[in-house]
Amino acid sequence: MTMHAVDLIRKKRDGEEFTPEEIRFLVRGAAMETIPEEQLAAWLMAAFLRGLSLAEVDALTTAMKLSGEVFDPAPLGRFAVDKHSTGGVGDKTSLLVAPIAAAAGLVVPMISGRALGHTGGTLDKLECIPGYRTQLSLREMEQVLAKVGASIVGQTKSLVPADRVLYALRDRTSTVESPYLICASIMSKKLAAGLNGLVLDVKTGSGAFLRRKEDALFLAALMVETGERAGTRTAALLTNMEQPLGRFAGNWVEVQESLDLLSGRRHPLNEDLREVSLALAGWMIFLGDAAKTAAAGRQRAEDILESGQALRIFTDMVEAQGGDTSVFAEPEKFHRPAVRRDFLADRSGYLAHVDCTLVGWAVQRLGAGRERAGDPVFAHAGLEMHAKLGDKVKVGKPLCTLYADFDGRLTEPEILLRLALVIADEPTPAEPLIQDIITASNRKQYLEAARHP
Amino acid sequence: MTMHAVDLIRKKRDGEEFTPEEIRFLVRGAAMETIPEEQLAAWLMAAFLRGLSLAEVDALTTAMKLSGEVFDPAPLGRFAVDKHSTGGVGDKTSLLVAPIAAAAGLVVPMISGRALGHTGGTLDKLECIPGYRTQLSLREMEQVLAKVGASIVGQTKSLVPADRVLYALRDRTSTVESPYLICASIMSKKLAAGLNGLVLDVKTGSGAFLRRKEDALFLAALMVETGERAGTRTAALLTNMEQPLGRFAGNWVEVQESLDLLSGRRHPLNEDLREVSLALAGWMIFLGDAAKTAAAGRQRAEDILESGQALRIFTDMVEAQGGDTSVFAEPEKFHRPAVRRDFLADRSGYLAHVDCTLVGWAVQRLGAGRERAGDPVFAHAGLEMHAKLGDKVKVGKPLCTLYADFDGRLTEPEILLRLALVIADEPTPAEPLIQDIITASNRKQYLEAARHP
Repeated sequence: MTMHAVDLIRKKRDGEEFTPEEIRFLVRGAAMETIPEEQLAAWLMAAFLRGLSLAEVDALTTAMKLSGEVFDPAPLGRFAVDKHSTGGVGDKTSLLVAPIAAAAGLVVPMISGRALGHTGGTLDKLECIPGYRTQLSLREMEQVLAKVGASIVGQTKSLVPADRVLYALRDRTSTVESPYLICASIMSKKLAAGLNGLVLDVKTGSGAFLRRKEDALFLAALMVETGERAGTRTAALLTNMEQPLGRFAGNWVEVQESLDLLSGRRHPLNEDLREVSLALAGWMIFLGDAAKTAAAGRQRAEDILESGQALRIFTDMVEAQGGDTSVFAEPEKFHRPAVRRDFLADRSGYLAHVDCTLVGWAVQRLGAGRERAGDPVFAHAGLEMHAKLGDKVKVGKPLCTLYADFDGRLTEPEILLRLALVIADEPTPAEPLIQDIITASNRKQYLEAARHP
Repeated sequence: MTMHAVDLIRKKRDGEEFTPEEIRFLVRGAAMETIPEEQLAAWLMAAFLRGLSLAEVDALTTAMKLSGEVFDPAPLGRFAVDKHSTGGVGDKTSLLVAPIAAAAGLVVPMISGRALGHTGGTLDKLECIPGYRTQLSLREMEQVLAKVGASIVGQTKSLVPADRVLYALRDRTSTVESPYLICASIMSKKLAAGLNGLVLDVKTGSGAFLRRKEDALFLAALMVETGERAGTRTAALLTNMEQPLGRFAGNWVEVQESLDLLSGRRHPLNEDLREVSLALAGWMIFLGDAAKTAAAGRQRAEDILESGQALRIFTDMVEAQGGDTSVFAEPEKFHRPAVRRDFLADRSGYLAHVDCTLVGWAVQRLGAGRERAGDPVFAHAGLEMHAKLGDKVKVGKPLCTLYADFDGRLTEPEILLRLALVIADEPTPAEPLIQDIITASNRKQYLEAARHP
């Protein structure tokens, strides 16, 4: 029977469930551009308002995944695992967990993204390393993985082309914030890497895209469900994004902070980054059967980090992808921000609240991020925090330091930071760093708790 | 403040109400094609699923009306009134009510449509009169009105261009059947004719687009509300469309049936057509203050019909628009269907049920209608009914007669009619012809009774 887009739109409009064939028809039409955008837009809005069933999300994810090239890690003969974050500020855990998991005997084919909106992007950070190539073919990525065990690359044009069409359309039609469509977009790209295991870092709090905890939990459970249905062992950690993770947010400054931790140089202001990274790596190791429990996985991750093995793998990966690792020893040769200015506390008290999204926008306005896809980013732009939530601060002392390429870049960020960093007489009680863990065994309760829209 | 389509889509998506400015921005964007179709499509689906407030429907109707040229009947110095039907089978009331209302001293600038789907179109019928021009400019229509008092024409390109864009888009995005969008589409086109009064014939029953009576009532009340808000006296009659109206359905056959009634030739099988036409014309006359009550208006309409005045005005109108009225005296000179075949009852009993939509499709397949806008129609194709609902029928006797241009045209209609016309041992009780009347004074109760989608 011939399918018609107009009938499928009507079906979703009336709240009915699609068959996998119908979803394949739509996704193929999006990828091949045989269904016009106005029909896809109407379908997206109907899906946004009516919601999708678990079976529909599964079928949509699979169809999107299969709309282009797919990576097959089987020839590598090792468990393929990745970590994905829903996006945060100062979140450089990818640079830590990829080499740690590789050191534990797994392979990590990590297809990362770029900075967008108030959040940073792993590729923009890595590209601060002179020569580092993020645009590898799948064949080249396989070679790096065979040699090093970890490879962090950008998405190729041939990977999940349906998502490129649908995502651009969602952006223009106010249909981005649907958990069903977010899940299919994220999971189709992750599963196209042929993963055996996947750990999701779902952010919650003032710096997260999904600020309400119940929304974050539902999305996390939806992604775990979808991963498990596709045969990928999946777990999600709900982690705190109420302030930047670690000390630094930006591009090169985040690479440096990661190198510090990989080199065993700890600092009280980035213990949170270290802890989240070890928890995520621990789950990667546990899913990959290289530890009996997630806690044992975390211990193994810490041992690997302390031993220097992760630093070696990170260095090898950078070199395998063309990067000049002499920058690690002599960063001043390559990197010197033109402007550096302290941002001072305007009163004494405790850092009581951080609007972390505003901090993210401040980092973006410094030049580290981009408002629109395709905008350029500056390697040296960034922010260094001198206090974490709950810390005592003193009037006239630096709360943070701003880095930029020229003076004019500082004005807007200073205004944003004055709004974002709230000093009060009393500290507010700290939220836990890892707030929930959603796994194959407990996902159902979170899915059932959520009402459909 | 600059408006962005993406923000307006989000607003409707989240169930918020638009300001008139926001609606004007959208309608202007549709008419000028400055808002891309995928954004209009997403907005239409959000409006379909979230519904519109009465104020939004009012603003949408007005903005659409003002998107193009508008007719001003004021120079004619008479009350301008029209009748609009939501579409039926065998519905030729326009050909009767326009000259009746004109004879009562009103002017009737009637902008009509063409056959679409299972319903017929007034323009296709009138074009069976040799020479009759349906494509007049507004200036030419004004001249016909000044001379005759009634003019039945087609829509010009410059009238309500926003509706052309939005309707075509709704058709492709399954957003047609929204009462809010239907109301704005119909009323913007009617109000663009500058009407002082409007009588709506909202069909209900098996041949109507809206089959459920509550849907028809809600649409009727919405249109009355919108008309009254625009300063146009508006009333809606909910009329029975559970079988073809009158004896004939098609093109030329419907003109002939109208001429019969205009000439005082009554027939038991089209008393329903006569009655609905008089009721509609009575309301037109009453709204135009040419009668004290709708009942008095109906009596005046009947007197006009019987006196032959309506026939004279109809003949004058046809001639003023270039038609050759010799066809009325000698139809065989112009019209002779090539094929004529009786459709026989396959059992004795009572005509107990008619699927009037199927009958409409049978007429369309005979060649009288069109499946897609732009298809050609045949003047001589049509159907003559020999029984009405509740009539006794005898096996082997004709239930109806089919007219077409060639034999091959009859096969599909015969199959459809066998399904559509149900003969049973007992007659089913007849539904009233006029089921409800929605006016300025009682519209609120129907609007309140309806739930938003």
